Amino acid sequence: MLSKSQIQYLKSLQQKKFREKYSAFVVEGPKLVSEVLKSDFSVSGVFAIPQWIEKNFRLIGTVKTVEVAPRELERISGLKTPNNVIAVVQIPDSNPPKEMSFDNFLLAVDGIKDPGNLGSIIRTAEWFGFKTLICSNDSVEVYNPKVVQSTMGSLFRVKVYYTDLPKYLEELEHDYSVFGAFLDGENIYKQSFAKRGILVIGSESHGIRPAVARKIKNRLHIPAIAGSGESLNASVATAICCSEIKRSFLKNI
Amino acid sequence: MLSKSQIQYLKSLQQKKFREKYSAFVVEGPKLVSEVLKSDFSVSGVFAIPQWIEKNFRLIGTVKTVEVAPRELERISGLKTPNNVIAVVQIPDSNPPKEMSFDNFLLAVDGIKDPGNLGSIIRTAEWFGFKTLICSNDSVEVYNPKVVQSTMGSLFRVKVYYTDLPKYLEELEHDYSVFGAFLDGENIYKQSFAKRGILVIGSESHGIRPAVARKIKNRLHIPAIAGSGESLNASVATAICCSEIKRSFLKNI
Repeated sequence: MLSKSQIQYLKSLQQKKFREKYSAFVVEGPKLVSEVLKSDFSVSGVFAIPQWIEKNFRLIGTVKTVEVAPRELERISGLKTPNNVIAVVQIPDSNPPKEMSFDNFLLAVDGIKDPGNLGSIIRTAEWFGFKTLICSNDSVEVYNPKVVQSTMGSLFRVKVYYTDLPKYLEELEHDYSVFGAFLDGENIYKQSFAKRGILVIGSESHGIRPAVARKIKNRLHIPAIAGSGESLNASVATAICCSEIKRSFLKNI
Repeated sequence: MLSKSQIQYLKSLQQKKFREKYSAFVVEGPKLVSEVLKSDFSVSGVFAIPQWIEKNFRLIGTVKTVEVAPRELERISGLKTPNNVIAVVQIPDSNPPKEMSFDNFLLAVDGIKDPGNLGSIIRTAEWFGFKTLICSNDSVEVYNPKVVQSTMGSLFRVKVYYTDLPKYLEELEHDYSVFGAFLDGENIYKQSFAKRGILVIGSESHGIRPAVARKIKNRLHIPAIAGSGESLNASVATAICCSEIKRSFLKNI
């Protein structure tokens, strides 16, 4: 049985200001909760129906667990259809580490606002082995429940950092080739990629903004082969770029 | 000034059953409305603030136009922030034509449910020159306002049809190579594509279902090069497949 203050706390984590205050976020549903429990993230509590707890006691280990009735779950869930379990997870440090012991190719986004887009970008990043995502400070918060759910668990395996993007690119440009996806530029299908690089994707409405664009030496363009249209969705553009970068490595092996 | 019955009619078009009853749907905002006015779609009415009408009188031509106050627009809009103009557009015939005078490569979706995904798929289709999209009957309705808005206008240039997909693929298989995106299959990066084909994309939750899968001779797979993760978002998978199909044509030219 949940106390009033527990209910209030859990509900408050649907809002950014409380996530910041408590440095915690929520993860919902059996699939995502089991993935976060297996990850490096620190889970501070699990709230679940008895059947779920019974099935997952090994996975839960020593994590503090509270049994809740389906009705109580409805009160604390952010989903339309609550799904057996909610976990409260600590927000990790969001500053990119000073030491560059990164993987070889990084991904960065400039001002992405749509939660579904950011979620899809993180899912795509994992698929293509991009282990680090750098977000401009004004990008949508990755611990927003909509982002969390739409990553399908990839969030727990891709490191996501927030920073002053133009400044960050400036620090990086000695060691990394900086690429960006634009509506004009070099045909991405004919591009070769260095092993150590960073790919910048712009926002849904503004693309890559001038302050960031000035730091990008390699302008890439996805040509509309035999097609037309004004632009691609940001997560779609990311996917095609990631696919081409990894394919270019295959060619070079 | 809008009459009560006009307000009721416009608001009702937010719901599928009324769109079906009146065979009409709504398009909102200056960008989309100007694109639908330039398209082959039949616009039966425009409801706009005076400034928009003044600027766009050439585009409007003989279309029935009603001047509305910003406050009235708020009452009839489906958007959080109403945006100057709403058009009512006739729903075209949704049955695929019997005569196959299609473009060479068709796109098909099996049970896509997420409006944002369908919108993004249509936008991607236009970019890569796929002019026809065939949807299984249970896919989300393309005239759902969320789909309409997320196509960014591509909906007015890509033909979208609904049909019994397994039956349709059976009729097509003599003339077209049928491809599908699966979690296993041939590496898409090494594939050659016939000029005349159809690419099937599965739904977010079920992939391509058995009844459809049985009609697919060529199983494609997007390999997670140096990466991992369980699957890709349906619109992301579509984008990578479309990109690869068109790139393969470039190689063959």
